[in-house]
Amino acid sequence: MKIQIDCIPCLISQAVHIAKMVSTDDAVRYEIIKKTLADASNMDLSLTPPEQARLIHQAIKTISKVDDPYLEIKDMSTKFALELMPDLRKIIENSKNKFETIIRFVIAGNIIDFGAIRDFDLNTARERVLEVFDMPIDLTAIKTLEQSMDKAKKIFYIADNCGEAVLDRLLIERYSDKITLGVRGKPIINDITPREIKASKLDIVPYVDTGDMTPGVSLRYSNKEFLDTMNSADLVIAKGQGNYETLNEYNRPIVFLLRAKCQVITDLIGNIKQGSLQVIPKNI
Amino acid sequence: MKIQIDCIPCLISQAVHIAKMVSTDDAVRYEIIKKTLADASNMDLSLTPPEQARLIHQAIKTISKVDDPYLEIKDMSTKFALELMPDLRKIIENSKNKFETIIRFVIAGNIIDFGAIRDFDLNTARERVLEVFDMPIDLTAIKTLEQSMDKAKKIFYIADNCGEAVLDRLLIERYSDKITLGVRGKPIINDITPREIKASKLDIVPYVDTGDMTPGVSLRYSNKEFLDTMNSADLVIAKGQGNYETLNEYNRPIVFLLRAKCQVITDLIGNIKQGSLQVIPKNI
Repeated sequence: MKIQIDCIPCLISQAVHIAKMVSTDDAVRYEIIKKTLADASNMDLSLTPPEQARLIHQAIKTISKVDDPYLEIKDMSTKFALELMPDLRKIIENSKNKFETIIRFVIAGNIIDFGAIRDFDLNTARERVLEVFDMPIDLTAIKTLEQSMDKAKKIFYIADNCGEAVLDRLLIERYSDKITLGVRGKPIINDITPREIKASKLDIVPYVDTGDMTPGVSLRYSNKEFLDTMNSADLVIAKGQGNYETLNEYNRPIVFLLRAKCQVITDLIGNIKQGSLQVIPKNI
Repeated sequence: MKIQIDCIPCLISQAVHIAKMVSTDDAVRYEIIKKTLADASNMDLSLTPPEQARLIHQAIKTISKVDDPYLEIKDMSTKFALELMPDLRKIIENSKNKFETIIRFVIAGNIIDFGAIRDFDLNTARERVLEVFDMPIDLTAIKTLEQSMDKAKKIFYIADNCGEAVLDRLLIERYSDKITLGVRGKPIINDITPREIKASKLDIVPYVDTGDMTPGVSLRYSNKEFLDTMNSADLVIAKGQGNYETLNEYNRPIVFLLRAKCQVITDLIGNIKQGSLQVIPKNI
């Protein structure tokens, strides 16, 4: 999707939030914000929102000299999710439809997001993961996903945030013989990069990274290896809103698993509630 | 107060909101937003937030050729408030401390604000005005205000928004022999200008306008007549957050009456809740 007018205040707000994280010096903060505003004023309207975010975060890194402002938060999120796993496994074990329960938790993990939800609080995350157990979900789409995963020979699974990625293991381990994992190439917000794969216990499958810092999968900026792996899979699974924003027009078999976090996205998907669990198969 | 880093996303968000109001043409909307971002990137950090808003709204007017996007909303707000007045007068009549009740309603009116509260809804405004009857308020500050108004020979009363201004009459009519009203000089958001004074039934006192479109009182851009009138009064009463943001460092006797609408302001005033009723005497 192309960037929408309503994405702009959100991107600026994200920049302000990070400017305050990376520096206590007002001069540095203002330098970051002014650069962000100047870049945004020259915005290429054919970019997706995550591609515009990429430019903003690149400027923040250059000015602040902080390469990974979310390092600590990422590691805390991973730890939190690892501690949650035994309980989730018990719930799955006792559930009637195990695949459906796994999908619920795998989407639930998408609530661990410090980009779209800047005031996200790990203290309430446990409840927010567990609440999905009773939330509405498209059972037909889940069936389509299960059949497609069963049938596929090569699945490319594009992860999203740290913490969330730990929960992805619940689905990945069932299909580990045919999955390749896709992650971001460079630190960007709290998205998973190669650095966090082992700690997230996702080193049971091979991975490729985009080589890029878009908080999504840019078809312009991702490297050839990543794009070739994606394009040669029978099925792509893409987690989270950033991957949806960059790949919603991708014309090969893909299933998006996400929680809709803003009105731009609920409007784009159409007739859905903010925070709802979304399983969106396309070209299947 | 000088503009804070957290004011910036809010100003951009305001521009996006108005861009969508004044045009359905995406090209025009983007032109407005890009100009807003470019202006903001060259921001003079010694400006107050309303002075920066002034620049943004000026650009919007120039590009869209719409001089008063809130015209209809202003008139609806005035009508709404006029219809509310008989009920408020009855409540005041039956209350133990009439002055206190008047002050509560005069501050309550400050909730009618389409600038700081972009999704403000006139349908819920009646409840939101009446709810103030039971809200905490600084009774000592109200006493100070009453004594200062009783004692003053010349009071300069700076109004804020349309609708709210109708409720200001409750206080103004008690001191009409010594009050001069101050309003904005040109259309800006839903702030009152000379055009709306008669409809708001405030033509019982003389008025001066700033000659300017800052949604507050700019000490740089207001005309001489306005500043002279303000500076020669024994007491200034300033309604709303925009007037607070531009006059909080004004060093003559002044009382601010407002509802705090954002965290920048609750932090600046210190230890207060968002939405709370504020009576803030200074230099008295």
